[in-house]
Amino acid sequence: MNSIGGTIAAISTPPGKGGVAIIRVSGEGAFEIAKKVFRPADNKDFSDIKPRYAKYGYIVRDGETLDDVLLTKFPSPNSFTGEDTVEIACHGGILLTKTVLELLFTEGARAAEAGEFTRRAFINGKLSLTDAEAIGALLEAKSEAQIKLSSETSRTRLGQRLSAIRESLVKVLGSVFARIDYPDEDLGDFSDGELLGLLYNIKEDILSLKATYKTGKAVSEGIKTAVVGKPNVGKSTIYNLLLGEDAAIVTDIPGTTRDLLKASVSLGSVMLNLADTAGLRGEVLDAVEEIGIKKTEKILSECELLFAVFDISRPFDKEDEELIRLLEQAGGAKIAILNKSDSTAKFGKEKLPNIFNDIITASAKNKDDELIVALSTSVEHLFIDGEIKLGEDAVISTARQSAALLRGGEMLNQAISSLEAGFAQDAASGDLERALGAISELDGRAVNEEVVNDIFSRFCVGK
Amino acid sequence: MNSIGGTIAAISTPPGKGGVAIIRVSGEGAFEIAKKVFRPADNKDFSDIKPRYAKYGYIVRDGETLDDVLLTKFPSPNSFTGEDTVEIACHGGILLTKTVLELLFTEGARAAEAGEFTRRAFINGKLSLTDAEAIGALLEAKSEAQIKLSSETSRTRLGQRLSAIRESLVKVLGSVFARIDYPDEDLGDFSDGELLGLLYNIKEDILSLKATYKTGKAVSEGIKTAVVGKPNVGKSTIYNLLLGEDAAIVTDIPGTTRDLLKASVSLGSVMLNLADTAGLRGEVLDAVEEIGIKKTEKILSECELLFAVFDISRPFDKEDEELIRLLEQAGGAKIAILNKSDSTAKFGKEKLPNIFNDIITASAKNKDDELIVALSTSVEHLFIDGEIKLGEDAVISTARQSAALLRGGEMLNQAISSLEAGFAQDAASGDLERALGAISELDGRAVNEEVVNDIFSRFCVGK
Repeated sequence: MNSIGGTIAAISTPPGKGGVAIIRVSGEGAFEIAKKVFRPADNKDFSDIKPRYAKYGYIVRDGETLDDVLLTKFPSPNSFTGEDTVEIACHGGILLTKTVLELLFTEGARAAEAGEFTRRAFINGKLSLTDAEAIGALLEAKSEAQIKLSSETSRTRLGQRLSAIRESLVKVLGSVFARIDYPDEDLGDFSDGELLGLLYNIKEDILSLKATYKTGKAVSEGIKTAVVGKPNVGKSTIYNLLLGEDAAIVTDIPGTTRDLLKASVSLGSVMLNLADTAGLRGEVLDAVEEIGIKKTEKILSECELLFAVFDISRPFDKEDEELIRLLEQAGGAKIAILNKSDSTAKFGKEKLPNIFNDIITASAKNKDDELIVALSTSVEHLFIDGEIKLGEDAVISTARQSAALLRGGEMLNQAISSLEAGFAQDAASGDLERALGAISELDGRAVNEEVVNDIFSRFCVGK
Repeated sequence: MNSIGGTIAAISTPPGKGGVAIIRVSGEGAFEIAKKVFRPADNKDFSDIKPRYAKYGYIVRDGETLDDVLLTKFPSPNSFTGEDTVEIACHGGILLTKTVLELLFTEGARAAEAGEFTRRAFINGKLSLTDAEAIGALLEAKSEAQIKLSSETSRTRLGQRLSAIRESLVKVLGSVFARIDYPDEDLGDFSDGELLGLLYNIKEDILSLKATYKTGKAVSEGIKTAVVGKPNVGKSTIYNLLLGEDAAIVTDIPGTTRDLLKASVSLGSVMLNLADTAGLRGEVLDAVEEIGIKKTEKILSECELLFAVFDISRPFDKEDEELIRLLEQAGGAKIAILNKSDSTAKFGKEKLPNIFNDIITASAKNKDDELIVALSTSVEHLFIDGEIKLGEDAVISTARQSAALLRGGEMLNQAISSLEAGFAQDAASGDLERALGAISELDGRAVNEEVVNDIFSRFCVGK
């Protein structure tokens, strides 16, 4: 994204036909441009329209009325972007909204790029980068837990925690630099012992915040999951159960951000990214021979969660043993499902080695959701930190945020090691600066242009 | 539609993901319900929010923030529906907007039916029925001409013309009834001659308004059109030209209002409904034998416009003759296209009988749009009344409106005949009442419930 300047316009509501569509115009020229195309129904002056007041009037092109609309002015800085912004609520016809938008372009606005409104909000200090990421997640949210995680309260809490860490680091660095600049005057605020104590505290803060990423990832980015088992154990039924009415199913269109077709379903608060759904509908290892041991091992090793399905109505056999052998080598969490509990059991838990995080005995064909409830409880227990109040507590929810915290923590560790090894405070200053840099990058106070481009390019046009 | 009462809520923006979505709540309980779910960011009281002011705050459910939104109150009667209305602009996530909407349902709103907001606007006198139809057309508009036809100016003009006709009829009827009620006192305002003169004028008004339907239909409802010709004359090329980049193509989903798949393309101001696109891609009579004379005759007789294509690079032959024989029997307008003008002509206009409204010699393969321009001019000339200023003049644009005018005109004619035959004024009163009824039905002052249901059921939910 290179076109930083100018007044931008876009349809901010979803594409398609609806009762109402919102066209957003933002930038220095927003009012001037809007004035050229809008005539208030009461024929009053455009400048007389009060801020944030929904004014009824007409979009006029060459003297002809195109539509009757509500127009609202949001003068800078009290707008989403922080710039002068105009929102036009017109009738939601596809051609109509396009025509009104093109009129705005004729009068001097240019087409907004994907995420450009939010990017401007970020540049103008209306949003931090973590806020922007949370808003992006809110638009994509497929589960209630995701909505909570991205809520304004949660965003604010994260901002506060990051600010607190940042401030502590700034205080520490100030003291260290004072010592460096004036070594003889003993201007530092903290003794070596005090400094070390402070750094331990900051490290603790960073670690505890970073720990929330386990939950954030499970809710927001999702857990790569596969349903495995020999043929006819009920994998398809379980798969369909997961995709059932109450579950969100989302198939990403290839070529956008991901290359693979993927189905995401929510199981309680956890998002499951079912693996290889394009070809295998999330079921792998239908017959070990069939798809080949190598390929199976690869899929199993890549998954973070495996549902291993066994049919207890038939005797435990070689194929089940082979599955267990493969599972023993696989990483990730494993939940065994002893399926077909409505038949006489030919075997039970005793056949399973101690490699499963949970074992559920149930019948997937049972209509009362017992299996989904049990899986949901088990999966939430595995991936969601029960101490965290979703929607209220600060939660790290993207790999980028987690990586920045990790980097910050590592730098802090190095500074601590250096102090513990008896080096002077100034020896730690570089690491402390880099730690501060990592935290500042997290909320976007200091951030690499490429990271910003990557974040905002994920948004749709009009946001 | 039976659920008339209560407070209704729906997402008014198009379905799908976008930056912003608008949820509309309308009815007596709108403010009360909105108050339960919305907390202003400045913690002021809900009742302190000024009318039409976009207030920033939070949607809160069980103490948890779901989203940060802009909420605008539109107190009755200054709202679209005429009722107390609240518009909530929330982030445009699919699950998020659904969650906020469901919260509104929990707090006492009910789901709005298709077109229910507009229906309420009609019931509350904010819109006439012709306005509602025009807004419906605006949402569906596929050409600039359609947008103009549905514009607020055009709507207002139509309302004014209908009111004028109605008022004249009321005046006339008042006079006639006065005579009936008090026959001896000669209380009527008009002599028989005067009355006849007035009725002629009203009839003239009705006829001239009804005459605009030819244009309105061509712009709005479209002209049933087929491209005909023997094999390999270039029908597909012409068809693709019509569907080209600049033309709007819309395929209706079967089962909504129409049963047939249909492609509508705009050619200048005219909308062409290409016939039988499901099976035949708008091309019929590819080989007369192939699809059968009977079927061809049927298609030709149903079309209002036929593009008859001839290939002048090959000699005029039996098949061309057979096409002409069929065209001679067909109704509707006919435009002959002498295609492949870039080759040496083997024949010309002299081979064609005098049954064509226009003959165009061109090459459909030519990139400079000569054929489209020529067709566009020819078709506009045939179907658009050049006297009408689209977007400014009143235009009848639906079959319903046209039928009501026709009925009104017929009743008036009967009244005129009766007076001309020397009957007393009171003999005409029944016909005059029915004429008034037809006009009142047109703008919805008096209207049959079924008609209203039919009109509003065509709208989407949220409008």
